[in-house]
Amino acid sequence: MNIPFTKMHGLGNSYIYIDGFKVNLLEQDLPEIARQASNVHTGIGSDGLIMVLPSEVADVRMRIFNRDGSEAMNCGNGLRCVAKFAYESRYVQQKTFYIEAKSGVVQATVHLDDDQLVESVTVDMGEPILARSTIPMETESGGLFDEVIHEPFRVDGDDYHVTAVSMGNPHAIFFQEQIKDAPLYTLGPKVTNDDRFPEGVNVEFVEVVKHDEINFRVWERGSGITQACGTGACAAVVASSLNGYLERDQEVTVHLDGGDLWITWLGSGSVSMRGPAVTIAQGNLWV
Amino acid sequence: MNIPFTKMHGLGNSYIYIDGFKVNLLEQDLPEIARQASNVHTGIGSDGLIMVLPSEVADVRMRIFNRDGSEAMNCGNGLRCVAKFAYESRYVQQKTFYIEAKSGVVQATVHLDDDQLVESVTVDMGEPILARSTIPMETESGGLFDEVIHEPFRVDGDDYHVTAVSMGNPHAIFFQEQIKDAPLYTLGPKVTNDDRFPEGVNVEFVEVVKHDEINFRVWERGSGITQACGTGACAAVVASSLNGYLERDQEVTVHLDGGDLWITWLGSGSVSMRGPAVTIAQGNLWV
Repeated sequence: MNIPFTKMHGLGNSYIYIDGFKVNLLEQDLPEIARQASNVHTGIGSDGLIMVLPSEVADVRMRIFNRDGSEAMNCGNGLRCVAKFAYESRYVQQKTFYIEAKSGVVQATVHLDDDQLVESVTVDMGEPILARSTIPMETESGGLFDEVIHEPFRVDGDDYHVTAVSMGNPHAIFFQEQIKDAPLYTLGPKVTNDDRFPEGVNVEFVEVVKHDEINFRVWERGSGITQACGTGACAAVVASSLNGYLERDQEVTVHLDGGDLWITWLGSGSVSMRGPAVTIAQGNLWV
Repeated sequence: MNIPFTKMHGLGNSYIYIDGFKVNLLEQDLPEIARQASNVHTGIGSDGLIMVLPSEVADVRMRIFNRDGSEAMNCGNGLRCVAKFAYESRYVQQKTFYIEAKSGVVQATVHLDDDQLVESVTVDMGEPILARSTIPMETESGGLFDEVIHEPFRVDGDDYHVTAVSMGNPHAIFFQEQIKDAPLYTLGPKVTNDDRFPEGVNVEFVEVVKHDEINFRVWERGSGITQACGTGACAAVVASSLNGYLERDQEVTVHLDGGDLWITWLGSGSVSMRGPAVTIAQGNLWV
């Protein structure tokens, strides 16, 4: 079978995009196609496959299949690429529109370059969840509904301070004087599996450079060190504001290993994330 | 820059193929394009990039750039794909023709399926080199020009027998009753760096199934366990003949982890290797 495809990436998180407006694969084994297409040795190679489809509740719908064929709820880097794909394919005319993912409907806004191509995309990442019990994080002393800001946190006899934020998934943020000194390899694997986070946690290290710029590194739950984590970057900006290092309603440049994101914790409550979406290749794939 | 590309693989060894008959990249930084295209996160993803070019001494010329941008001498899996590419692009009309690689000119013959597409390709791998000193292998007893057939070989106090063959690169072959019992993980890393092979050695384990079929696993010099090694499969067939397990002029099916190759040690001296060449995708790549 011959399938038209586009490969795109956001901060190095790459997917094969299939145009479900033109190509009908509903009768096909999508998990198997995702596995084949994602294999770098015998397929194209990617983190998975994303179907871009008509939606009944939004302007466009995305279905994400991981490399192993399992279906994912959502993906921030994938959302930006879907927005670029839908806008440049003229499936949406307006610059702000809505994308349906398995986890819900998300607002996206495209930003164009001089050639009228989508250079970056802003995605509404929703409101952070700050109550301890909903992160979830256990406690010996604090209240279930308290926020976890600069709280003493002891690991193997060493004393740290943690700020905890959920963006739908849990994040533990540690501030550093200098990002290069972040104990990513030592603290990352310990904290991610710490009993005080019953569902595990993404572990982030943040250096506040100035009032609109931070450096960021992450140990992702289940993955280890990765090049970029969109929800982690959002959590880091929220945590920086909660600690008084940054202002609300200010766009903050977050430097990640894989590139930059621009994040604003709006006064209204939501976090908006702007980041790049890049087309790598376009063509036909045989599976 | 927008470059037309084809991605192909032979036994899972995948490259991005660029048509140098149509696209002029001579002024471009080919090592940098190879690095970008091979990166699975921000490019397509592959083991490297192969330019298919006009030749002054053969029917077609190939230049191979590894993932790191370095230029390779030759690649058996790549040769088969270049043959398919050149024939299906009608840059050659005859089914047997010559391909220029950095290491020299190689004869290739394409085999067609019912749609007149190239299904498999036979490549002349040249004559094996059998004299001990030219493999090269050192010795305490045998003569410099003797062949190394079923020779006692002690490793860490355990006794084995080795047959050594060079196909331009050195191979040490160990026969097994059953391939599943091959001590790949224990003997592989030891023998590949053994002092008796001054240039290192590819370590192969072979089970002779019947007179025209062998099972094969490999620990590649510098790479470890890989899915397939074309020169290793040739060396295994030669070694099996030298030990009296197989006849010359008989096509032998070699089962590798990555798939099958069909190898014949011709009475004339040369080894011919037939194997698959598969087109994965075709399109345009932005670099």
